[in-house]
Parts: sequence; C-alpha cells; structure tokens
Amino acid sequence: MSSATFSSNFLQTGCLRKDGFNNPKDKKRNVGKVFVKCSVNTKTQKAEKEVRLGVLGASGYTGSEIVRLLANHPHFGITLMTADRKAGQSIASVFPHLVSQNLPKMVAVKDADFSDVDAVFCCLPHGTTQEIIKGLPKSLKIVDLSADFRLRDISEYEEWYGQAHRAPELQKEAVYGLTEISREEVKNARLVANPGCYPTSVQLPLVPLIKANLVQPKNIIIDSKSGVSGAGRGAKEANLYTEIAEGIYSYGVTRHRHVPEIEQGLSDAANSKVTVSFTPHLMPMSRGMQSTIYVELAPGVEIKDLRQQLKLSYEDEDFVVLLDEGIVPRTHNTRGSNYCFINVFPDRIPGRAIIISVIDNLVKGASGQALQNLNVMMGFPESTGLLYQPLFP
Amino acid sequence: MSSATFSSNFLQTGCLRKDGFNNPKDKKRNVGKVFVKCSVNTKTQKAEKEVRLGVLGASGYTGSEIVRLLANHPHFGITLMTADRKAGQSIASVFPHLVSQNLPKMVAVKDADFSDVDAVFCCLPHGTTQEIIKGLPKSLKIVDLSADFRLRDISEYEEWYGQAHRAPELQKEAVYGLTEISREEVKNARLVANPGCYPTSVQLPLVPLIKANLVQPKNIIIDSKSGVSGAGRGAKEANLYTEIAEGIYSYGVTRHRHVPEIEQGLSDAANSKVTVSFTPHLMPMSRGMQSTIYVELAPGVEIKDLRQQLKLSYEDEDFVVLLDEGIVPRTHNTRGSNYCFINVFPDRIPGRAIIISVIDNLVKGASGQALQNLNVMMGFPESTGLLYQPLFP
Amino acid sequence: MSSATFSSNFLQTGCLRKDGFNNPKDKKRNVGKVFVKCSVNTKTQKAEKEVRLGVLGASGYTGSEIVRLLANHPHFGITLMTADRKAGQSIASVFPHLVSQNLPKMVAVKDADFSDVDAVFCCLPHGTTQEIIKGLPKSLKIVDLSADFRLRDISEYEEWYGQAHRAPELQKEAVYGLTEISREEVKNARLVANPGCYPTSVQLPLVPLIKANLVQPKNIIIDSKSGVSGAGRGAKEANLYTEIAEGIYSYGVTRHRHVPEIEQGLSDAANSKVTVSFTPHLMPMSRGMQSTIYVELAPGVEIKDLRQQLKLSYEDEDFVVLLDEGIVPRTHNTRGSNYCFINVFPDRIPGRAIIISVIDNLVKGASGQALQNLNVMMGFPESTGLLYQPLFP
Amino acid sequence: MSSATFSSNFLQTGCLRKDGFNNPKDKKRNVGKVFVKCSVNTKTQKAEKEVRLGVLGASGYTGSEIVRLLANHPHFGITLMTADRKAGQSIASVFPHLVSQNLPKMVAVKDADFSDVDAVFCCLPHGTTQEIIKGLPKSLKIVDLSADFRLRDISEYEEWYGQAHRAPELQKEAVYGLTEISREEVKNARLVANPGCYPTSVQLPLVPLIKANLVQPKNIIIDSKSGVSGAGRGAKEANLYTEIAEGIYSYGVTRHRHVPEIEQGLSDAANSKVTVSFTPHLMPMSRGMQSTIYVELAPGVEIKDLRQQLKLSYEDEDFVVLLDEGIVPRTHNTRGSNYCFINVFPDRIPGRAIIISVIDNLVKGASGQALQNLNVMMGFPESTGLLYQPLFP
Repeated sequence: MSSATFSSNFLQTGCLRKDGFNNPKDKKRNVGKVFVKCSVNTKTQKAEKEVRLGVLGASGYTGSEIVRLLANHPHFGITLMTADRKAGQSIASVFPHLVSQNLPKMVAVKDADFSDVDAVFCCLPHGTTQEIIKGLPKSLKIVDLSADFRLRDISEYEEWYGQAHRAPELQKEAVYGLTEISREEVKNARLVANPGCYPTSVQLPLVPLIKANLVQPKNIIIDSKSGVSGAGRGAKEANLYTEIAEGIYSYGVTRHRHVPEIEQGLSDAANSKVTVSFTPHLMPMSRGMQSTIYVELAPGVEIKDLRQQLKLSYEDEDFVVLLDEGIVPRTHNTRGSNYCFINVFPDRIPGRAIIISVIDNLVKGASGQALQNLNVMMGFPESTGLLYQPLFP
Repeated sequence: MSSATFSSNFLQTGCLRKDGFNNPKDKKRNVGKVFVKCSVNTKTQKAEKEVRLGVLGASGYTGSEIVRLLANHPHFGITLMTADRKAGQSIASVFPHLVSQNLPKMVAVKDADFSDVDAVFCCLPHGTTQEIIKGLPKSLKIVDLSADFRLRDISEYEEWYGQAHRAPELQKEAVYGLTEISREEVKNARLVANPGCYPTSVQLPLVPLIKANLVQPKNIIIDSKSGVSGAGRGAKEANLYTEIAEGIYSYGVTRHRHVPEIEQGLSDAANSKVTVSFTPHLMPMSRGMQSTIYVELAPGVEIKDLRQQLKLSYEDEDFVVLLDEGIVPRTHNTRGSNYCFINVFPDRIPGRAIIISVIDNLVKGASGQALQNLNVMMGFPESTGLLYQPLFP
Repeated sequence: MSSATFSSNFLQTGCLRKDGFNNPKDKKRNVGKVFVKCSVNTKTQKAEKEVRLGVLGASGYTGSEIVRLLANHPHFGITLMTADRKAGQSIASVFPHLVSQNLPKMVAVKDADFSDVDAVFCCLPHGTTQEIIKGLPKSLKIVDLSADFRLRDISEYEEWYGQAHRAPELQKEAVYGLTEISREEVKNARLVANPGCYPTSVQLPLVPLIKANLVQPKNIIIDSKSGVSGAGRGAKEANLYTEIAEGIYSYGVTRHRHVPEIEQGLSDAANSKVTVSFTPHLMPMSRGMQSTIYVELAPGVEIKDLRQQLKLSYEDEDFVVLLDEGIVPRTHNTRGSNYCFINVFPDRIPGRAIIISVIDNLVKGASGQALQNLNVMMGFPESTGLLYQPLFP
Repeated sequence: MSSATFSSNFLQTGCLRKDGFNNPKDKKRNVGKVFVKCSVNTKTQKAEKEVRLGVLGASGYTGSEIVRLLANHPHFGITLMTADRKAGQSIASVFPHLVSQNLPKMVAVKDADFSDVDAVFCCLPHGTTQEIIKGLPKSLKIVDLSADFRLRDISEYEEWYGQAHRAPELQKEAVYGLTEISREEVKNARLVANPGCYPTSVQLPLVPLIKANLVQPKNIIIDSKSGVSGAGRGAKEANLYTEIAEGIYSYGVTRHRHVPEIEQGLSDAANSKVTVSFTPHLMPMSRGMQSTIYVELAPGVEIKDLRQQLKLSYEDEDFVVLLDEGIVPRTHNTRGSNYCFINVFPDRIPGRAIIISVIDNLVKGASGQALQNLNVMMGFPESTGLLYQPLFP
C-alpha cells in the first residue's frame, strides 16, 4: 500500500501524518517512511489528591500492594516512596505492573523529604522499623506494617525477635489496628501497628466468640495455611518456584513469630492468659491464607450460637462476611480483596467446633487493612478506595 | 468471665446486648447466653446507577468478570442476569467471590424481562448467540463477547464454526470492537462484536505496523500462549488441574477458530489477503496471554521504526502501553487489568523482528474490552470503572 | 548439499540410504528425495514376565499409575487391561505418557478374558467393584483399590456409601492391606482391600502410638491436605485448573468417606471405639498428601517416647521413614515414590504433640501400596519394582 | 489398654517387647512404658556396584537428578560426592527426597579423593568447570553437564561466556554428546560435553531433517518454552514462586547462551553456517521443555517426508519417539523420564512446517542424557537404569 492510499483511507478518522522528513535528525534513514497517528487523546488525567502519602519500603510486596490499592483512591495520593537498595529507580523498574502510574522516583529513606507528606505507610522489615519511625516528624500519621509495634509487652518482643526494643516510648502510644475490633482506638491513633496476616485471620473469628464466652480459651488448635507472598520478595532458596510448586509443608511448627501476637489478642478477649497450638503451612500459591481452627465449645453452647454471635459482630461490616450455613470459605474467593470470609462447622467429636476463616494475606492481612486503618485515622469512610472485588479465577 | 463483667467491659464502646431470652423460640436452649454486638454500622451503601445493564450468560468466566469489573463503575448497574442452567440461583451460589454484591437472581434467558434494561453484555457460547441477539429489543445496546458476529464474511463463519449463520442481517450492522482501532465506529454502534483474546493480542501491535507498511504481510508467524480460563468453565477432562498443571502443549495447531478473525483484521490493515501461521499453546496458569510474533521487516525498515510507529499509535491511550526499549512484557504484569503491554525486539536473523504483546485474556481479551466498548457506546470516558491496576504477585 | 556429498559423509557410521525410488507408490512424489537411516538398533527388548496381571479400570489415575510402576518390575507383566468407556483404545491414546510401553488394547470388563491372568489390580469406582469382583474367577489374586471392601462392618459401608453391600461374603474374606501393619494377613490373602490415601497417612503414624498407649485415643484432630489427583480423572467443574490453582479450601468437613476407615483402624489399635475430628483440604497440587495430627499425650509420656516407638516400629521398613529430630516432612519429598515420611513435634500447649506424615496419594496412598501388597501376596520381596526415588523438583 | 492385654494381642505376629526398663539410662523416665516392635526386617539390602562414580556438584538440581536416576542402576554406584558450600553435609540435609539412599558425605572438590572413582559426572557451574576438569586424573571417564566444553570454537565460547577458555587442549578431545546423533564418537570418548537442554530439544528433530535436505537451513524460528528448574537452585528474586507462578515471559530474546550451541549443531548438519531465531520463554512449571520450530520446507518436500525421515532416524531408538500423525507432544508426558517426543505438522502458510519436540529439561535435557552417555562410554546397554516411565499427573 502506498502512503497515498493509506492516508486517504484514514482521513475521515482524523489520522495525523508524521513523515520522517519532519524530523531533521532522522532525515537520512527514514526517507520515504510515513508514520501515522490515528487516535485522539482519550487518556485519563489524574487529579491532585488532598492527602499526601509516603510509602516507606516501596520495593517489597506489601509496598507495591499499597501502591496498587491507592491507584483509585479519591483522596490519597503518593508523593514520596523510599527503597534503600533501589534508590533512584522508578517503581516501574522494580514492579513493571505499576508502569501506568505516574509516581515519584524512589529515594533512600535517609534522603526522604517529609515536608510534603501527611501520612506514611511503613512497609519496612521487622527489626529496622522502630528506629526509623522514631526519627519521623511527629506530625505524620503512621501505619506500620511490620511487627515492630504489635506486641504491647516489650519483653515478649525481645524474646521472639531476639533484640531489644528500640522505641519503648512509642510502643505505649501504638494502637493495634485490627480495624473491626479496635476501630475506636484507631480513630484517634497517630501510630497504628497493623496486624500480621495470621493473627488477622485468627482473631477476626475468635475474638468475638471468646469475648462472648462461647468457646473455651484452652486447647485452641490453629492449623493455618498461607501463600508464599507472606515471605516477601527476598531471594531465598526455600521460596524458589521449584521448591514451592506442587508440594506443601509445615514451617515454624509451634515457633512462628505470630504466636505471641495471636495469644495477646486472644488473652485480651478472654481476660486471661491464652496459649494456643499454632502450626503454619506453606502452600503452593502466591496469595491467600486459611486458618482452620479447632475449638472446644463452652458448656451448653451449640454451633448456631457461634454463628449467631458472628452474625451480630459482623453484619454491619463491609469486609468481614459470615457465609451462609454450610458454605465453605475458600481463599480463591478473597484474592486481591480486603474481605475476610468466615464460617463455623460442627465437629464429629461432640462439644467441638471447626472455624474456618480466609483472607488475602497481602490485602486484609497487610496492605488492605493498613489502608482501612488510614481511612479511619483520616476520617474518611472506612471502605474508601478499598471495595475491590476478589479476582477469580 | 460472667456476662456481668462482660457487658460492663463493653458498655463504653456502645455494644448492644442481645439476650437469647428475647427470642421466644430460642428461650429454652439459650438460657443464660448473651450475644454482643459491638460495631457501629459502617457498611457502605450502594447508590442507584443511571444505566441499567443485563448480563446474559452470567455463570461463565466472562460473565463473572463483567460483574467483577462493574462493581465499582459509577454509572452502570446490573438489573438483569441470565444463566439457563443456574436459573433461580444467586450469583454467590455460582461465584462465591461475588457474595458481597447485591445483585438480582439469575433467570433463564427466555424468562428475562428487558423492560428494565438499557444495554446488555452477551456472554453466551458461540453458536447460540445469533439467535438470542436477534430476539432482543432493538432499543438495547449490545456488546457480544461470543465469536458469532466477529467475521464479516458469513461463509467464513460457516466454514470455521460448522453451521449456518442465523442472523446475517445483524452481521451487517455489527461493528468489530477492537476499541483502539475502531473507536469511531464503536461510538455509533448498536451491536458490537467484541474481539477474541488471541486476535486482540495480535492485532493491537500488528495492525498499525502493517498499515504503516513497516512489516511484510507475509510469513507472519504467531506463537501464542494462553492461560486456561480462555477455555471457559465447562467441565472437561482436558482442563482438569491434574491435566494442566506443570506442563504445556500446543492445541489446535494452525486450526484454531481465531485464525480467520486474525486474518480478517490483518488483511484489512494490509489491504490484501493475509495468511498467518498461528499456533496457540496452553499454559499452566488461569489468566494471561502472550503472543510472540515473528515478522519480516519491509525493506529499509528498522526496529526503531516499529517502536516509533507504536509509540505514535498508542501514546495517548490508557490501555495499550509500549514498554521502554528492551523491557520484556510479562503476562504477570497485566493480570486482572485491561492493559496490553507491547514491545519490539531485533531478531538475530537480519531483517526480522520479534514483537511481543501480553494481555489478561479475560479482561482486555474479553470482559474488560467489552466494558471499554460500552463506555464508548454510551458516551462515557472510555476508562470509566476500568482503571484497575494489575494484581501482582 | 547434494545427496552425493551427503551419503559420503555418513558412510563411515553405517547409514542406510533409503531412496524414495525404492517405494513404488511414492515414486512420483519423491523423485530425488533421499531418506537416511543412521542409527544401529539399540532399542531395549522387553522380556516375558512370569506373573500375568490384569488392570481393571486402566483409564483412571490409579490405573495408569499401576502401569507406570510395573514398567520396570522384573516379574509382573500386564496381559489384560479394561476400561469400559475406552474399550478398543490403546493405553497411549488415553495416557500418552505411557506410549513407549507395549501393552494390550483395553477391553470392556465384561469382555475380559481372565484365562491368561494370575492376579488383578482393581482400579474401579467405589460402588461398582463388589459386583465385579464377585464375578471374577476364584483363582485370581486381587488387590482392590476402591473403598468397597475396606470397612469390615457392612452397615457402616451402607451408611457412608448410601447403598447396600453387594458382596458381604467376600467382605469376610477381604484383608485390609495396610502393608506395614498387616503384612502377615496380606501374605495369605486372596482379596486385599487396599487402604485409602488419607487412612494410610493417618494410620501409619498413629496405629503404633495408640497400640503402645502413648497417645490418648480421644480428641484426635486430623487436618489433612491432599493433591487433586485423589479426585480422579472425572470431568468436574470443581476440579478444573482454574478452580483449583492458587487457592485452597476444606471439603467434606467432618463428613469425608475416609472417616469410618480411619476410625476402624484406630479403634482396632485402641481396642475401643475411637471418634476423630477429620478435615480434608484440597491443595493446588496434583500429587501429595500431608496429615497434620494434633494429639494429647498419655500421662507421663514425652515426645521422645513417641519418636522411640516410631523408630522401633519402622526402622526395618523400606517405605516408612521416621525423619531425624526436628526435620519437617514435605510432600515434595515423596512425589512419585512409595515412601511415607513421618515426624513428631512438641506442641506449645503442654501435654500435646503434633504428628506430621506425608505420602504421595497415588503411590503409597494407592497404586504403590497395591503393588507392595501384591509383592507380598505373590511371595516376592516387598519392595520389588517399587524403589523409585521421589521426583524433585 | 494395659500392657498385658497389649502384648497378648500381638504375640502371634511375633512382636518384640522393648521395656523402658531394659535401658538403664531411661529407667526413671520410662517407668511403665512399653515399646513394641512388630515388623520383621524386610528392608532391601543394597549390593556393591562394579563401577564407582563421583558426582561433582551434587547440591544442584542436575546433581540431585543424577543421584535419583542412579538409585536403581545395576552397575553404577556413587562413592564420591562434592559440594563446596555444603561440604560435610549429607545429601539428605540438602535434598531430603534422597534420604533413603545410603551415600557418602559431600566434600569440597579440592578435598576429593579420586582413587576410588572410575568416572565422574561434572555438575558444576559454567565457567568454573574447565579448570576443575583439567585437574582430574586422566584415567577418569567424564561427562560434563556444564556448557564449558560444548562449543568447538574457543572464540565463540569467549564471546558468549565473556571469559577466556581455560582448557583449550581438552576442548579438542571433548565429544559433544547428543547421544542419538553422535553415539559412535561417544563410545570412545573420555570427556563428553553433555548438550544443553534447549539444544537437545532443537537438534533431535532438526538435525536429521537438515541433513536430509528436507528443510531450509535459513529462517528457522525456534520458540522454546522451559520449566524453571533449568535456572538451577540459586536464590534469585526472578525465580521466586511469586515471580513465576501464573505468568510467563520471554527472556534472553535472541541472546540466550544456547544459541551458538544450536547453531553449531545445525551448521554441522547443513554443512554451512546457520543462523537461527531463538526465543526462550519461562513457564510456570518446574520441569519440561517444548520447542516449537517454524521452518520452510525445501522445494518439493511435504510434511509426510519429514515424518518419514524422523521415523527412519528414530524407530530403533529407546528415547526419541515420533508420535503418530496429528498427536501433539506434551511436556507433561515426558516428566521425570529420558524421552523426547516429536511430531511434525503442516502450517497454514504453504511450504512451511511446524515441528514440536518436548523433553524433561533435567533428564533428557541434562542428567538423563548424561547417564545415557556414560552407559555408552562404559559399554553398557544405553538404556540401563534409565527406562523410567514419565510421571503423570
């Protein structure tokens, strides 16, 4: 086809001819080439957002998940991103799926300018976060996704994390942000410790049931199953595709660091020290978490009482959903969303119940709940920018 | 904990006591049980939407994907859903991941009431759709996701689909909705034939290059790779997890039904009959599609000319993105989104290029492009409700 | 290259020239074509085997697994294969991975000629098997992989399988073939009921511990995880790749049909009726099974006692392996093999233990154990033809 | 159950009572505990093997695959294993799936004692191997699985691997071990360079066709797809489960290091310099490789001629199988085995063919072919210990 017939073909839809000739430096090479531009600019323009956010540790999975979720938030805009080892790079060079967003370059946290920032999500590794948050301007609202401020008892932190707490005074101020349970405290918090994924999946069903005295706080057996993204993006042999695909295993049998956090929450609910059996299992899937929880019922209590309590506790919530009787929660059905699906089943052994809860470990178990918390802290409706439907299949 | 201490604990956060005693029929069983309701109602209320939609064939993957995408659309609301074999059921019983949406029960298409509907997405199987669309009220805007109206040449339809075309008069009216290429025609269309997934992934990069005379329209070799969701939700041995996981294979070598659709689009671009080599491969993944396209350059043309043309063609588009030089598109980076990522690479063999494009076969390759088309048809900005970021990992 | 230079190239390695000319009917088309045969015949010849086997139901996964395992067995050869819906087909047309084997065509079971057969593996569906085995010649040794003869108590069979037992007299004769536990009975059996996959994974660790009075026979909680191949090759929506990949769920909560088989074995071991909590979970993997078993220790018993008992029970076994202290069994490490790996861990809750066992559900959980049993029944060393190493990764 | 009833239960099957009392140091703790040993020792005894092997680099995937394959070899036994970073460890600590084998501890290669060794498999990284093999006793037979001796032209090695060749004199001696093609040379070789996985999958179908002048040696387009195990066990972010699962991408477009090896083999076959288009794609699977090869037929040649040549070339081979007409090779059907399945299809574009070959990249593409070569080098039947059936599903 000659360029003549070509342009006549397209004149009616307003195509712009762009001859190589017009561009002097390409003159030689492009003799005779005719580039054509046919589309009108329909590209969506992004508006300024009223709340300016920083994402500290943007090069990990919880950081990128924050960025993904915020893309359609009507009030929150990202003005600062840090990633020490990727300083100077664009987010697209680290997470190509975010290439369509127009975001600031990543800087080292030590070079970060917070003058332009109202609130931060802190997505840094456990153990390094206390120091960094201690150094942040006091005017900032902070949601910390690490484990560094989750345990009220500093000695417990030291026992499980093997190092002294670096910011004990901030610990007192920190609010544990299991949103549905601690919404009122979160509202007025400056520093929220965002719950771990396993503790979220366990406490959402158990706290109301223990509080209402419906299940025994002893001999609680938690068999949890998690996708691999919970382990982060660090290069470890154990998390290679070849080591994970098509197989499963238990890890950290009884010694996983989420144990004290779970026990803290359940002990609060029970008003007494609770010790749980907790066994996490690694699943060949990227996202998703299920806790299968085996409990003894309090005397005289039946399965329908548990369902009744959970219905009451969560019927006005957006994100925690008690499924219809007999319907089994599936991790598939929460993928990419902030939902937690729950149900309760009778056990074959009389006097026992099986409670199942599922979440997406990176959303309700991390970045989604963090955004839910910041919505609450900033006075926006809690579900703002978070009502993504699960992605299935 | 006694119920006395319990309720005093919670009075300050406004928990409502719900005694079993209040419910007469539970009186006997629940003596002494105290259920507690602690949350204030923060549940998000859904507003009425101005455009009322029907989803025909809501129990398949493209149907559920339409429902997922529409959940946050500001103008489109679903008032009708059909699914013949699931008539009478809720969407949640068929797709539990959609349980949080408040949607009408599914009905058989023959029982559907279209008086309440402005537009429909037709997600029915190939071969059955012509008849059904023929029977719809003429006032409806229609986006048809089946292959039934994609081939202009009715004899070609008959050859590849093995049956006579049932609605040849409608065929004349149908607009082939590769949005970026045919936006103007889509604007005024009543019936849009939504492109197939493979043809979308192939035409988006090739059409502008062939139109601009930069690649030869002969010996085009297309090696495509698709996730399994393209095969739909029908129960087939070949698509069992055990048959698909951890392995790959070519299917329909040179005989896939998307061949005539691809050749139609490329022939239009070339203004001459184009015959392609097309080999689809089934990948062990649910979503995602890559076409690796091997082409001969027109005389004197270089790789940078191809990049230049694609840049011009798509720089004002939201959903088609030419990646930076050397960056390889990955299906991972489109998952759950309407994006198509493209790039061009020099081949080792002089005078040849390798073009790679990736999409999510269920979004840009089906339901997302369908929504994009309906946005255009109804006069809304094209990306309305469609700017979901890809889900990774 | 001309054919002249070509053949001179290859003369020294003894290539045979095969001109198209030699074949009269190809004469015209192949003028000038020269095919070349270069290899000497090094193909392995298969010898006659002394024991002639029938595989009933060869078109399912347990049937094909039997065929795979037998390929290198020095004494067993397959002379009969049945598959009602695939009668007349070759095994390669149904299972292309078995194409290199030289096997008889499949016939309908009603047309099978057993005159040439010494023993059969019966890989037919539950519920149909009793009738068929009743009709087999009494001279045949039989290993039945279905559930039809596993439950000694016929009323229990009827309760869980919803139909009357069709061969109660054979039930009395049937030996439950958990090889390591019932080796002596298997030796003299004519009809062996091969254990289910879950019951195998649960009984191998628990039976010795319960017999030795080391764990309490009450409140045993079994959280099992299985690959999808356990569901067979039937085309079901629930088992599509898209429905299984990247997610997990519990199924048959407390109501799985393997419950009575597990309870039968544990009750035997305990000499009293045992009721277990059993929750199977479906994993996104084709093969592999883990049972995580939560038990209460008998008074005064410690973890090391459990390990000591298991060591004694299994140190002289080929296929059941107690791992070193602290080493976590992984399903990955049994794939494709007949091994069962076991270990015991202390629970956080005092007085409790966590027992983990893993198997390949299709091998030790089905076809491998079946072959192990037939080896025993026919007087061959138990591991004959079964010492395949696991396939990893 | 008392220990009295217990032992009477078991007396008839000859269980041995092992009282804690018998062991003086356990006296106190085990008062009253009775351990029971019920099985007779049926454990398989391993015999001495006549050929003593060393595996250099046993801690990677090709090393462990060698160990897996050798487990049932009647003549080859492993007497030496090296792994520099895992020196002093058992193979089971590095590869738990090999726990049942009785093997020597791994040592550093510099500490290896070769006095006890007749032949070695060298599974070390590219670039380090030349030096090490240079230092080995000349009496050893060597199969090298690295790329270090595959390219006859030393300058080509230097160009693609970015470093000088360290053992040019050995290069002259090395035989390229594509067994079916170079069997005669392998027989007499001391040092065999085992082919790469991609080159194996490409050359097995193409070499005979090019030699026979049936396909054009120009414009050969190879679109290859590989499982992740080809990348080895090194901890890299790019190969994490989360980065690989549920997505695909091309890597090393036209620049993969297997290109010169492929071109060397095809050029030999063509007796002229061949340049290919080669694009490898990474698949979400651990094992398996497919090459889809697009070729132009020589004038007058038809698809059936290609099939005829491949039939002649491979009908006497154990491991290379031309499938029946129209049957599509699947990687699933080679998993864990040494088979290569091949077929040829007509293209839509006249005068072109599509050739598909599949292998398991770790077996025929690496360790299996290595063992095949050593069998030939040592004078054993080529398939000895290698006739593993594929593992499916």
